Order: sequence, then structure tokens, then C-alpha cells
Amino acid sequence: MPTTIARTAIIGRDVELGEGSIVDDFVILGASPSDPEGRALPLHIGCGSHIRSHSVVYAGCSVGDRFQTGHGVLVREASEIGSDVSIGSHTVLEHHVVLRDRVRIHSNAFVPEYSIVEEGGWIGPNVVFTNAAYPMSRDAKSNLRGPHLLPGAKIGANATLLPGVTIGRDALVGAGSVVVEDVPDGAVVVGNPAEADAGPAGRSRRAVPVDPNGD
Amino acid sequence: MPTTIARTAIIGRDVELGEGSIVDDFVILGASPSDPEGRALPLHIGCGSHIRSHSVVYAGCSVGDRFQTGHGVLVREASEIGSDVSIGSHTVLEHHVVLRDRVRIHSNAFVPEYSIVEEGGWIGPNVVFTNAAYPMSRDAKSNLRGPHLLPGAKIGANATLLPGVTIGRDALVGAGSVVVEDVPDGAVVVGNPAEADAGPAGRSRRAVPVDPNGD
Amino acid sequence: MPTTIARTAIIGRDVELGEGSIVDDFVILGASPSDPEGRALPLHIGCGSHIRSHSVVYAGCSVGDRFQTGHGVLVREASEIGSDVSIGSHTVLEHHVVLRDRVRIHSNAFVPEYSIVEEGGWIGPNVVFTNAAYPMSRDAKSNLRGPHLLPGAKIGANATLLPGVTIGRDALVGAGSVVVEDVPDGAVVVGNPAEADAGPAGRSRRAVPVDPNGD
Repeated sequence: MPTTIARTAIIGRDVELGEGSIVDDFVILGASPSDPEGRALPLHIGCGSHIRSHSVVYAGCSVGDRFQTGHGVLVREASEIGSDVSIGSHTVLEHHVVLRDRVRIHSNAFVPEYSIVEEGGWIGPNVVFTNAAYPMSRDAKSNLRGPHLLPGAKIGANATLLPGVTIGRDALVGAGSVVVEDVPDGAVVVGNPAEADAGPAGRSRRAVPVDPNGD
Repeated sequence: MPTTIARTAIIGRDVELGEGSIVDDFVILGASPSDPEGRALPLHIGCGSHIRSHSVVYAGCSVGDRFQTGHGVLVREASEIGSDVSIGSHTVLEHHVVLRDRVRIHSNAFVPEYSIVEEGGWIGPNVVFTNAAYPMSRDAKSNLRGPHLLPGAKIGANATLLPGVTIGRDALVGAGSVVVEDVPDGAVVVGNPAEADAGPAGRSRRAVPVDPNGD
Repeated sequence: MPTTIARTAIIGRDVELGEGSIVDDFVILGASPSDPEGRALPLHIGCGSHIRSHSVVYAGCSVGDRFQTGHGVLVREASEIGSDVSIGSHTVLEHHVVLRDRVRIHSNAFVPEYSIVEEGGWIGPNVVFTNAAYPMSRDAKSNLRGPHLLPGAKIGANATLLPGVTIGRDALVGAGSVVVEDVPDGAVVVGNPAEADAGPAGRSRRAVPVDPNGD
């Protein structure tokens, strides 16, 4: 299958795009980071990918096959992205993020540097990860720690994760929760601050993200 | 009045745009859905509309007169939108959404498929609706139910609505609330989870969205 | 240093751009407000600024030196912005906003009209300010009052501020909080509704925005 690149898309010098991929209008691939170290780096995106309109992917990222973005997505430099990953419209992925295979991130989310999402992790719309324990402090930049989602962890819509929390394997964070400490494997947590969900009513009503299979 | 379409805007084949409408730069009208069924469908937008820059409206939607979008708005396929509707900058409207006349949605909001907003509904900035009770489950897609706002319901800024909740006529959801069950007509609810607001102090301080008349 | 303007950028008639500035692709500078009063006004942006791709800055704003935007930022008319200010990707700044020197706003935030942020204020990702106490009421527009951040105030990720609250000097609002009343100088508040943080554990775990030095 041929690769299709819209006439208005802007493709940087050192961009490799797998066959059968589609790049929509007003997209920028291989944008140049401010950091001079990142400027010479290539951008690799695997086969069968679709980068939707108005999205920007920086140089220095390595992205697997069948990558899907919504519209207006931003992916900064030096991120490592597996295969079969999708990122929803208007989501911002900062630099030095790791997303393993089959990760899905929905719309309007924010994922800062040094976040790690293992296989099959799911992140709902408007979810926010954080990574700085002492903002505006002198050494804030040297102490950044993003959240770490273990395989199959799911984060409900509009939840907030504090810096460096680990979300356990197949754990579920309820929509609108604020997660201030680690969540055990398989746990369901809800509220502000997020705590173990009390019972079946809570379970069925509060821990619910948006459609993960939606596109 | 003539219709004004910016030189850089991209207009699909089967797009009908009412007279006196304005389409800004870097807009895409009549974008083609992934679903092959939706590809042949027309897009109709009524008279006196203004689609601001960097917005995308898919094929297969029917939109009334005097439609206003902010910048970078996304409207997916198969949605039905009344007259005098406005959608704020960077808001994402998924497919199969129904917005009746005089609905206003503010900036950075997320409205998934099968959401219904009746006449005069108001949705604040960064509000998130959800529609999947069991995310990533095998039959998640066949059980999607979006929120349903009855006429005049208002959702405060950054609130989160769980799947399938009904928000009563002229009810008000406070800013930052997480709504896990139906809200009665005329009620004011606040908090996480959202509950009836205690008194006048709460009423005046907590249940407050951003300016609904703002543009 | 010369100013660099991308070939696809659209620059209005009365735009002054300081030397050494960079304007990326698909940017619009000097966009025309709907309000006829604002149409004739100039846009001034100081030296050494960088307006990243897909951003829109309206006519009638005055912006200091070394202004930095992320991608897809929206700055509406009649705002006054100091020097060394940065605004993150996809953030929406409405009209008549005041940002003093060294203010930093992160990604996906929403700042409505009549908000004021004093020197060194910091606003995390997906933060939402509000400004209307009685939405959809007849005189809502004449009673708008945005939040006021005193110098050095910091607002954690995904927090919501109710209309007209004052956040004290060097105060810190925890991530995911909903602020319904004024916050004293130097205070740390968390929760929904936000209250004084109980102790050192809370302090270290809950009051934490994302990296403020990040770009």
C-alpha cells in the first residue's frame, strides 16, 4: 500500500514513515526541538499509521506500527511508542514518555515527561498526569518523576495523577479521581483523594471511564 | 450575504454551507470518517455560521443556522446539531451526538458518542462526559450510553459526568463535581461524588460555571 | 537577529513583532475579533518570542519580550501580557486577561476574561478558571469576575477556581482541587472543596503540580 501525505503537511528532513501510512492536512512531522541535542535526530513511524489533521510529532521519537492519532495531537521529542497505540484528539504528550504496545490515550489528556504506560494501559479523556513534587523549586527539573501504569491499568476520565505514583496491573482509577498514592494491582479507587471503592454500587457507578474502544 | 471561505480552508465534495457563513483559515469541512458507511454522506451547515480556524467538521452531520465554533473544534460524523448552537475552542464532539437548539458548549470539553443535550443546555469549559460502563470489556461498544441533559441543564466547569446519567430540567452541576447518578429537575449538586448543595453559601460559592454568555 | 515567519503563517495588517522572534507554520497573528470595536487595534509582541504552530493571537493584545507559546494556543483580544511569559499547548486565554511578568501557564488550561495573574504565577495543565456567578442569568455579563492570583501563587494540575477568588502570595492549590473561597498568603489547600492541607504527608503528596520548569 502506498503512503498518502496531504499536500499541506510539512515533513522534516529525517522522517521515516512506514508503508500504507496516511498523513492528513496541516500536520507537521519531524518538528525541531528547542534543545539543540534533539535537532539532528530522526523520526520513525511504523507501517499502517494515520496521523490526523493539525497534529505535530517532533523529531527524535520512535513509533511502532499502526499508530493512530486524533486531530491536533502533540507528541514531543525523545518519546518511545510501541505498536497499535492510539492517542486522542488534542492530547499533549511531552518529551521522554514511554508508551508500550496497545496503549490507548483518549482526547484532551496531558502526559508529561518521564511518564511510563505499560502494555494495554488505557487513559480516559482530559486525564492529567503530573511529575514535579516541588514546583518552581531550584531542583525541580532534576527530581521529575512521572506516573507509571503497569500493564492493563485504566485511568477514568478527568482523573489527576500525582507525581511518581504507580498504578497496579489491571487497576482502575475512577473518573474524576485524584490519585495521591500508589494503587495496588487489580484495585478500584475513586474520589478526591482516591481511596478503595466501597462496594458494588460504587463499583458500578463511579469507576467508569469513557468508551475505550471508541475512536 | 455572501459566504466567505478562507483560501487555506479545505472543503470536501459534498458540503452544503448556508449563505452568509464564514469559514476561517486551516479549517477542514466534510472530513472523511474511517467507517466506510459514513464516507458518502453529505455535511450540511446552516446560514450565518462561523467556523473558526483550525476546526474540523466531518461528513455526515446536519447542523442548523447560526452555528458558531471556536478555534480548533472537532465535530465527528453522524451528529445532529440544532440552530444557534456554539461550541468553544478545542472542544471534541464525537460521532452520533445530539445537540438541540441554543445549546452552548465552552472550551476544551469532551462529549462522546450517544450524548444528548436538549434545548438551552449549557456545558462549561473542560467538562467531560463519559459513556462506557465497562471500559475495555468485550461488549463495551454495544453498551455505550452517554449523558442526557434535559432542557436548560447547566454543567459547571471541569465537571465529570458518568455514563448514562440524566441531568434534570434547569438543574445545575457545580464546577469540578463528579456526577455518578441522575440529578433531579431544578436541583443543584456539588462535590465528588456530587450531592445536593447544602445551603445558600454553597449555592452562591460552589455551583458556578464560567460565563455562559461569553464567547 | 532576524525574525523568522513560516511560509504558511497568516499575519494581520497591524502586527508588530519584535526582532529575533519566530512564528511557526499554520499560526494566525492579528486575528480579527467579532466585536467591531476591537478590529482596528494593533497586536504587539516583544523581542525573542516564539509562537508555535497552529496558535492564534488576536488583534488588540500587548505582549512583552520572550513570549513563548506551545502549539495550538489561543490568545483572544484585549489581553495584556508581560515579559518572559509562557503559555502551554492548547491553552485558551479569553479576552481582557492580565498576565504579569514571568507567568507560566501549562497545557490545556482555560483562563476566562477578567482573570489576573501577578508576577511569577504558575498554572498547571488542564487548570480551569471561572468568572460567572450566575450563569445564563440576564446580567451575567455585567457581573463577571475572574480569579486573581497574587505574586508567586501556584495552581496544581486540573484544579478548578470559582469566580472572583483571590489566591494569596506564594500560596499553593493542590492538583485536582476545587477552590470555592479565597486562599491566604502562603497557604496550601487541597480537596473538593479545597481546604487547608492537614500535615506533612498531605503537603508532600497532594499539593503537587506538574513540572513548572518544563517546556
